[in-house]
Amino acid sequence: MSNSFGKIYKISTFGESHGEAIGIIIDGCPAGLKIETSEIQKELDRRKPGQSKITSQRKESDEIKFLSGIFEGKTTGMPIGLFITNKDQKSSDYDHVSQKYRPSHADYTYQKKYKVRDYRGGGRSSARETANWVAAGAIAKKFLSTKKIFIQAYVSKVGNIGIEKNYKELNLDNSENNIVRCPDNEYASKFINLIDKTRKNRDTIGGIITCIIKGCPVGLGEPIFEKLHANLGKAMLTINAVKGFEFGSGFSGVEMNGSKHNDQFQIVNKKVNTKTNYSGGIQGGISNGEDIYFNVAFKPVSTIMKKQNTINNKLEEVKIDGKGRHDPCVVPRAVPIVEAMAANVLIDYYLINLKHKI
Amino acid sequence: MSNSFGKIYKISTFGESHGEAIGIIIDGCPAGLKIETSEIQKELDRRKPGQSKITSQRKESDEIKFLSGIFEGKTTGMPIGLFITNKDQKSSDYDHVSQKYRPSHADYTYQKKYKVRDYRGGGRSSARETANWVAAGAIAKKFLSTKKIFIQAYVSKVGNIGIEKNYKELNLDNSENNIVRCPDNEYASKFINLIDKTRKNRDTIGGIITCIIKGCPVGLGEPIFEKLHANLGKAMLTINAVKGFEFGSGFSGVEMNGSKHNDQFQIVNKKVNTKTNYSGGIQGGISNGEDIYFNVAFKPVSTIMKKQNTINNKLEEVKIDGKGRHDPCVVPRAVPIVEAMAANVLIDYYLINLKHKI
Amino acid sequence: MSNSFGKIYKISTFGESHGEAIGIIIDGCPAGLKIETSEIQKELDRRKPGQSKITSQRKESDEIKFLSGIFEGKTTGMPIGLFITNKDQKSSDYDHVSQKYRPSHADYTYQKKYKVRDYRGGGRSSARETANWVAAGAIAKKFLSTKKIFIQAYVSKVGNIGIEKNYKELNLDNSENNIVRCPDNEYASKFINLIDKTRKNRDTIGGIITCIIKGCPVGLGEPIFEKLHANLGKAMLTINAVKGFEFGSGFSGVEMNGSKHNDQFQIVNKKVNTKTNYSGGIQGGISNGEDIYFNVAFKPVSTIMKKQNTINNKLEEVKIDGKGRHDPCVVPRAVPIVEAMAANVLIDYYLINLKHKI
Amino acid sequence: MSNSFGKIYKISTFGESHGEAIGIIIDGCPAGLKIETSEIQKELDRRKPGQSKITSQRKESDEIKFLSGIFEGKTTGMPIGLFITNKDQKSSDYDHVSQKYRPSHADYTYQKKYKVRDYRGGGRSSARETANWVAAGAIAKKFLSTKKIFIQAYVSKVGNIGIEKNYKELNLDNSENNIVRCPDNEYASKFINLIDKTRKNRDTIGGIITCIIKGCPVGLGEPIFEKLHANLGKAMLTINAVKGFEFGSGFSGVEMNGSKHNDQFQIVNKKVNTKTNYSGGIQGGISNGEDIYFNVAFKPVSTIMKKQNTINNKLEEVKIDGKGRHDPCVVPRAVPIVEAMAANVLIDYYLINLKHKI
Repeated sequence: MSNSFGKIYKISTFGESHGEAIGIIIDGCPAGLKIETSEIQKELDRRKPGQSKITSQRKESDEIKFLSGIFEGKTTGMPIGLFITNKDQKSSDYDHVSQKYRPSHADYTYQKKYKVRDYRGGGRSSARETANWVAAGAIAKKFLSTKKIFIQAYVSKVGNIGIEKNYKELNLDNSENNIVRCPDNEYASKFINLIDKTRKNRDTIGGIITCIIKGCPVGLGEPIFEKLHANLGKAMLTINAVKGFEFGSGFSGVEMNGSKHNDQFQIVNKKVNTKTNYSGGIQGGISNGEDIYFNVAFKPVSTIMKKQNTINNKLEEVKIDGKGRHDPCVVPRAVPIVEAMAANVLIDYYLINLKHKI
Repeated sequence: MSNSFGKIYKISTFGESHGEAIGIIIDGCPAGLKIETSEIQKELDRRKPGQSKITSQRKESDEIKFLSGIFEGKTTGMPIGLFITNKDQKSSDYDHVSQKYRPSHADYTYQKKYKVRDYRGGGRSSARETANWVAAGAIAKKFLSTKKIFIQAYVSKVGNIGIEKNYKELNLDNSENNIVRCPDNEYASKFINLIDKTRKNRDTIGGIITCIIKGCPVGLGEPIFEKLHANLGKAMLTINAVKGFEFGSGFSGVEMNGSKHNDQFQIVNKKVNTKTNYSGGIQGGISNGEDIYFNVAFKPVSTIMKKQNTINNKLEEVKIDGKGRHDPCVVPRAVPIVEAMAANVLIDYYLINLKHKI
Repeated sequence: MSNSFGKIYKISTFGESHGEAIGIIIDGCPAGLKIETSEIQKELDRRKPGQSKITSQRKESDEIKFLSGIFEGKTTGMPIGLFITNKDQKSSDYDHVSQKYRPSHADYTYQKKYKVRDYRGGGRSSARETANWVAAGAIAKKFLSTKKIFIQAYVSKVGNIGIEKNYKELNLDNSENNIVRCPDNEYASKFINLIDKTRKNRDTIGGIITCIIKGCPVGLGEPIFEKLHANLGKAMLTINAVKGFEFGSGFSGVEMNGSKHNDQFQIVNKKVNTKTNYSGGIQGGISNGEDIYFNVAFKPVSTIMKKQNTINNKLEEVKIDGKGRHDPCVVPRAVPIVEAMAANVLIDYYLINLKHKI
Repeated sequence: MSNSFGKIYKISTFGESHGEAIGIIIDGCPAGLKIETSEIQKELDRRKPGQSKITSQRKESDEIKFLSGIFEGKTTGMPIGLFITNKDQKSSDYDHVSQKYRPSHADYTYQKKYKVRDYRGGGRSSARETANWVAAGAIAKKFLSTKKIFIQAYVSKVGNIGIEKNYKELNLDNSENNIVRCPDNEYASKFINLIDKTRKNRDTIGGIITCIIKGCPVGLGEPIFEKLHANLGKAMLTINAVKGFEFGSGFSGVEMNGSKHNDQFQIVNKKVNTKTNYSGGIQGGISNGEDIYFNVAFKPVSTIMKKQNTINNKLEEVKIDGKGRHDPCVVPRAVPIVEAMAANVLIDYYLINLKHKI
């Protein structure tokens, strides 16, 4: 029951890292949306491994195949089935973990919960699953773009190096011009250097992704238990390796006084807006028309190329080697994942909001 | 559709701040749980206003009344209906906001979304609603205690003053001994002074609540879209005034290397545990038996006792006065709310987990 | 988890027959609907016991009290909380069943499932619960009437006496003019006589209610697992004592050939309709604009005024007396319940259908 | 949102009749269940067309392919993805319906609702979808068999010829020995003759399937809105061509007196049972340990091999030919579908019931 997400735009996924294929059913996409395979493939290519020297060197083509729900180039309102065949798995890389629990991975908890697990490549707990989310997000993004809602994320921190500038001072379109997906060229270089150095140390490092949603109309989000930011937060915390979420002023808002933090309404060019935007575009769980922005904290990747202490399934203390082809830092490839999950949340609220008519 | 929370232990709530009553239906509580009204009332008393000089001076008794689901002192498995009559409302305090939108409140977004709103005391968007959650949480806590799972939260930061100590160095039982709910007496005094000073300035200030869950067995949580920390995060972001959530290493984990951040498994006294606990007791979305801990960031309360700029419903720029009886800082009263929402999440996962037998 | 119904227009209920009160939260009613307490009370009065010689002689006033969700005579989009205080219960009438299981009641299954039960008046399994549904249905009916959708049900069979005429040959508005709620006066008399005779025999008898929905636009209902008729069927089977549901040609359609059963499309006055309507207004799970009609079969009430054989909770065979004040036939009072549940289903589909725009 | 079914054992499906493939994700199957592809294939072979002279002559092999969720012969608790490639479609058979609406099919309602439809072979509305359900049902049946719960359905009526005998007088295992799936050889012959005659008339005919569930423990089902029979009814009404559902005494129970209809409890061999079973094994929505039995009414198949009147998408009255390879009577192939949907419902309740522990 935990493999579905969303209420109206509802996605259900399946697939293990080293199984035959992963795949997704997207249920509830409105009929009549024009969509090309290439629009989805483009997003998947941003996520796929092997795209640069600072990502995993696995070569997954991540080619999607549509099975249903699209007819003559348009969605039909019926569920969209698509899958991605797994290729270039090296399951033998994982023989050593069939009996041992990798530290800070899901091996131990899955084994205890289910008494059985597909250990190859992390099985279901692998971030390979996020390719499904990116596919759904690409369709959601396409829909949202027809409503003039746009989502852009970028890497704003790696290790202890963080951009000080506010997102408004950056040209977000610049993010795709470098391999670390940072719109500030100076910081992009710093980030790349740090990641590369970390990789050479056979270690990993964390980072922060900042995400901006522009063009969101007033009224998306629901009161009480389905607040817009609560589901954005849940969606982000769903992404592998995420440890924290903050929106608007976030943790720094704690230190402020209400008299400063309050976003005063004003009329500019006959339109309502707020003088400041510490609220992050959401008030009472509902969008107020200002930019929505939030930060997502990623821990360092758990797979390191070093020997570590752990235990095996006989509950003996053992050593485990670092093997496989992994990312020294997850954030460059996680940018499209953050955008996709934000899009999956937003389209759902957009469609839910249509129901408040009388 | 946004007024329900949980899958098996499912709560549905209603009620406006100045309406006749607020109330809740708790559906899915297992049959046979012994519960006394006083156990629930005790938790509500921790949340109610007027309990000290640093909280709102409103006098709400918040007396609960059971209507169903309990028979001869035990739950019957049927839905538990309970309500709390609203008293001591001063709706006239809100006449001035019937036409104006209070900055950083939900007035504007509700009005735009629904075209109509009960403006008295914030209506449905008022934190009064959280009394319902605390009632449900009290029952959840009682259930969890029979499984030796315990939840304790405390105030760890107010404004820019934060406790440096780890929760393990504190005696959490000390939290209820001071009005700010901080287990460290020295910091408790600092927090109280800062809040009191802020109140005298007719202003408000933010804070952080830290929450610890002890005794959680291995296996609670679900993979992929219903990760334990994702729903804890969602639950916390549901609480009024929350701007951020982090668990385990959280945002500080970003700066760490994997070789340090990884929690190595070890055998101590023939039992599995981890040497460190940067994971915060959750791996792959599932509890691993270690303590679960997380931080929740609260912004400064939006209602300040100062005149502010805003607009009215004719879209004219106007001034708005600070009126009503409000908290200068929300965190002391939010401690039982954080605990309650954590309990509501945990009991649900506990009950969901019962299914994984064959 | 079984005390909620509906997806967008979502109702959650609580309450035992002899508890303090029963009640309901109606979540998802669109904002801005004008509604008066009297409009709801009117429907409840059609359901209440004691209204005629052929119904139970219990005197329940079934007075509703609104607690939230309505402000200045209009719905606000917030959950509508309402409850009905229980009065005139004679719990002592039920002492004899605290240890014994009444045949064909829910006593035995509840006891085995939950190990505890509120036996007074059947507790949660009592049809008293349906008062909640009628309240929700009254609001749904009001909303649907603003869309020109109307629902009318009537008693079409009691025991082995059934109206042969098609609903189109009857004046449905006549149903409320007699105590058995049958639009055909001749059959009304027959039904009343049979029920009265049965009552004097200290026995009970079953019946059929036919329900007609007029004005339903094309397009309500969803493909595959949420077909309109499937949820109408589920809703009807939810009503106490219901044993069967059929729509359109129903069980008699089994005997027909496709060449006769097929409803041929035609153009009449420039509008599409079908020459016949064996489909019952629904094709592929979606309304086609024709009248929707269905039959609901009710078994004889289980409580009879005769001594019966049964067992007690020590698993001994014992005798049980017929006590309490019960209906000899449930259908006259079930007419508003059928209408209400149909309305609760239809409003939900109406609101869900608003999403299919692009 | 209408392409998922079930709460714990949750299935989500996709696929059009003439698309690339159909498929299903089965989420919530307990880990550790041994399952072979052949066990599922066997059930699909009972459903597939072309199996006898009285079914459609289409040759669909309906070969399933597992993509996830099964590892080393056992379920892992992760979602089971499987799909069935579409073969032997003759889409050209459907060119004539691209502009015309077939009477009593879903063509018209889909077109009006979605403004676009995949008309080939009925697209999503085709009964081809039921192959997905049968696959899920095969796994559910396997699970239930480990709990000694068994489900058997058979054809009890075709046209106006119906078996008079009660299911207890029949040897249900005999059903698979004839092509019409009727356990009574005499009636099997009658049914086959009638269907064959109907086919030669280029017409179709309806029928009834009776389903029996043996071994269901006391306690499956939930009160109020999730009664066991209500969801069995919904599941059956979900099947293409179904017009009615009754359980236990069903529509004939209407004519009975309570004194006869009541199922008296008794102790036989120290075990509780009921003397009669008009309740159909369910009381108050919860199984009581007796056999569960119900009837499902199927209308005649809408596709007939005759010319019919209808309209086209320009709203002109036109003639439409009968083309394609279709069943003259749906019930022989619907037997495994009825069993599968019953199994999908039962396993869900079995798993939900585990949550009533304390």
